Amino acid sequence: MISTLLQNVRDNKPLVHNITNYVTVNDCANIILASGASPIMADDIDEVEEIVSICDGLNINIGTLNKRTIESMIAAGKKANELNKPIVLDPVGAGASKLRTETAKKLLNEIHFSVIRGNISEIKTIAGLSADTKGVDAGISDIVTADDIIQLSDFCKSFAKKTGSVIVVTGAIDIICDAEKAYEVRNGRPEMSSVTGTGCQLSALTAAFISANTDKVTEASLAAVCMMGLAGEIAYERMTDLDGNSSYRNYIIDAIYNMNSEKLDTGSKYKEIKK
Amino acid sequence: MISTLLQNVRDNKPLVHNITNYVTVNDCANIILASGASPIMADDIDEVEEIVSICDGLNINIGTLNKRTIESMIAAGKKANELNKPIVLDPVGAGASKLRTETAKKLLNEIHFSVIRGNISEIKTIAGLSADTKGVDAGISDIVTADDIIQLSDFCKSFAKKTGSVIVVTGAIDIICDAEKAYEVRNGRPEMSSVTGTGCQLSALTAAFISANTDKVTEASLAAVCMMGLAGEIAYERMTDLDGNSSYRNYIIDAIYNMNSEKLDTGSKYKEIKK
Amino acid sequence: MISTLLQNVRDNKPLVHNITNYVTVNDCANIILASGASPIMADDIDEVEEIVSICDGLNINIGTLNKRTIESMIAAGKKANELNKPIVLDPVGAGASKLRTETAKKLLNEIHFSVIRGNISEIKTIAGLSADTKGVDAGISDIVTADDIIQLSDFCKSFAKKTGSVIVVTGAIDIICDAEKAYEVRNGRPEMSSVTGTGCQLSALTAAFISANTDKVTEASLAAVCMMGLAGEIAYERMTDLDGNSSYRNYIIDAIYNMNSEKLDTGSKYKEIKK
Repeated sequence: MISTLLQNVRDNKPLVHNITNYVTVNDCANIILASGASPIMADDIDEVEEIVSICDGLNINIGTLNKRTIESMIAAGKKANELNKPIVLDPVGAGASKLRTETAKKLLNEIHFSVIRGNISEIKTIAGLSADTKGVDAGISDIVTADDIIQLSDFCKSFAKKTGSVIVVTGAIDIICDAEKAYEVRNGRPEMSSVTGTGCQLSALTAAFISANTDKVTEASLAAVCMMGLAGEIAYERMTDLDGNSSYRNYIIDAIYNMNSEKLDTGSKYKEIKK
Repeated sequence: MISTLLQNVRDNKPLVHNITNYVTVNDCANIILASGASPIMADDIDEVEEIVSICDGLNINIGTLNKRTIESMIAAGKKANELNKPIVLDPVGAGASKLRTETAKKLLNEIHFSVIRGNISEIKTIAGLSADTKGVDAGISDIVTADDIIQLSDFCKSFAKKTGSVIVVTGAIDIICDAEKAYEVRNGRPEMSSVTGTGCQLSALTAAFISANTDKVTEASLAAVCMMGLAGEIAYERMTDLDGNSSYRNYIIDAIYNMNSEKLDTGSKYKEIKK
Repeated sequence: MISTLLQNVRDNKPLVHNITNYVTVNDCANIILASGASPIMADDIDEVEEIVSICDGLNINIGTLNKRTIESMIAAGKKANELNKPIVLDPVGAGASKLRTETAKKLLNEIHFSVIRGNISEIKTIAGLSADTKGVDAGISDIVTADDIIQLSDFCKSFAKKTGSVIVVTGAIDIICDAEKAYEVRNGRPEMSSVTGTGCQLSALTAAFISANTDKVTEASLAAVCMMGLAGEIAYERMTDLDGNSSYRNYIIDAIYNMNSEKLDTGSKYKEIKK
């Protein structure tokens, strides 16, 4: 199942419009290319509506946001909604500043997102719960463990119901859910958090997946999460004693590039969360 | 011949001013350094004229443009013209939005460029022909093949005559021409398009070459195109089964860094296009 | 001694706010992560004060500055001063344009910096001396040699006294000093200058070090300089004939990631400068 969703990315080669931060933008472009899709980055108000119109999907990431780009996010998002193109929201750092929290909430009010992906602190923040944010990382008290996964998946499902979005919470255990169904994913490596922007990259990859699988947003998001985590595992196996987080960054993207159906179907570790 | 032009880059170490997009800017800086030149990036209207004055050449790339940086591009370009410093234009995504198409045309109206480098869809767009653009990539119906190379080189020559610029169209086969002479280059690998910004990097490299070879703009552009393609070939040979587009990006820049006269003269695959 | 300062970074995991250029920002984020600290990048006036409040330190780098970000630098810097959080200034390209020189001076007037790190041309420029700047690199006549190190350390000490900052001048020989004491460091490799942003990376790393060692700013800066240079040496040993500046970039960050106490204490080459 998972591999069919990847195959659709490779066959359809969707064009993905990204309005994203300048820190990890290059990695986002390369991971989209690695998946078989094509990226275009554009953030000026005078072109975002036109750019989103020629694209298959949109990825909005609020890292290094500013007044100019916030306006462009709103305009691009509304246009994408109008044209029925899928959109991912990555609320980077929501909870770390009022500007980020309020921008994320404003985006949620004005735009319908197909997928919202963040760490648990960001998702709790935008859902209106108090959260323990540490900059752009989840706070320690927020980390998802096996013990609280049912409780958290319930929270995510209810947020999914409220927003009409697929909710993706990533961490040691990832949760992907819509209003009806929730999955957990146990792919990935803790070392991935030592590479800047693996979250941003996953959001970009998710945008590629849902752009090529518009009728299966939940499953496509699940596939993207499995693939990113599995790429982290494959890349980790490749590490030598001399390699660190910079080589790891390259190896993760390389592993996305070299992913095939067999590896993906065999390596994906997901299951439905049931009570 | 080609290697002498590279040697001039290494001997003169030109300082190249770049006003470029935030997606591929780091790779542009590193490829300029790899060639033996030095980069400086500056895009504020209050400094671009001064920065271009201390530089040997200018590279204007319209990816992720905005109103603020467009104004700076115009100012920097005019100053470079006034001081007789060579300028490269990379009209990234011309055809994908009115803002990009009109900005590229405005730049062409107000500034004389030594070199204009783009894919065929971008070049057709700015020449006023209809083009089949796909985001920042050339559309399929625009791809240059052996069959239409004479026709295309005629079009490029006439655009070169009209603009007074060397025209560089890159793709599976590259065309480099001025009003009188056209060359084709058959270096490169199709996998280069899976690395974001290889086009931007070539424009930056071309700026380094023409800044060090101001009296041989056509030949210097030809040399840059050969060197970039050859670097793509050398880098490709180095790829293992685990390497993907991210490692390939590093290997291409590494190959520019390690290029020498012998490799470049032996490996360059160019010839004049004659009817 | 040096390794204890690194251990504090790894134990305290300080959160470092960066207002920095879009050229080398990704490498700055990854080197901060490699050191054991966490980066957050934010440059909008509406959030910088809040972001700096949740962080342990601030890194201000004036590369690719613009009117919007200059205002944010001032606001963030003042807030950090108010909250007694350490700040690094990297005056990239001071001397290359009036905007950069005046911005650096304005920052120095309005904000107290714990550390100012630049090449000798930049430091001379902001100290009000005439300097031989070449873009973002030091001019040849400014390069620090063994012969003039005492004279230069005297100049740096007096600038340290005037500003109340630790002054870090990097080049073939690095100088680190406060008003009382000066050190020289002889770690590093000349090839590091062929990687864009190794200076920016060092400033980011220094911000991580002083954020975790607020009571030992001089020693923490010295440790960061030794560690960066040593990482350059370790990374260089790893280079193959095919590797160039792009792989070198990765290997340097990898070497920071893999640095341990033994390597750092054994490999650091510093001594106090005495007359």
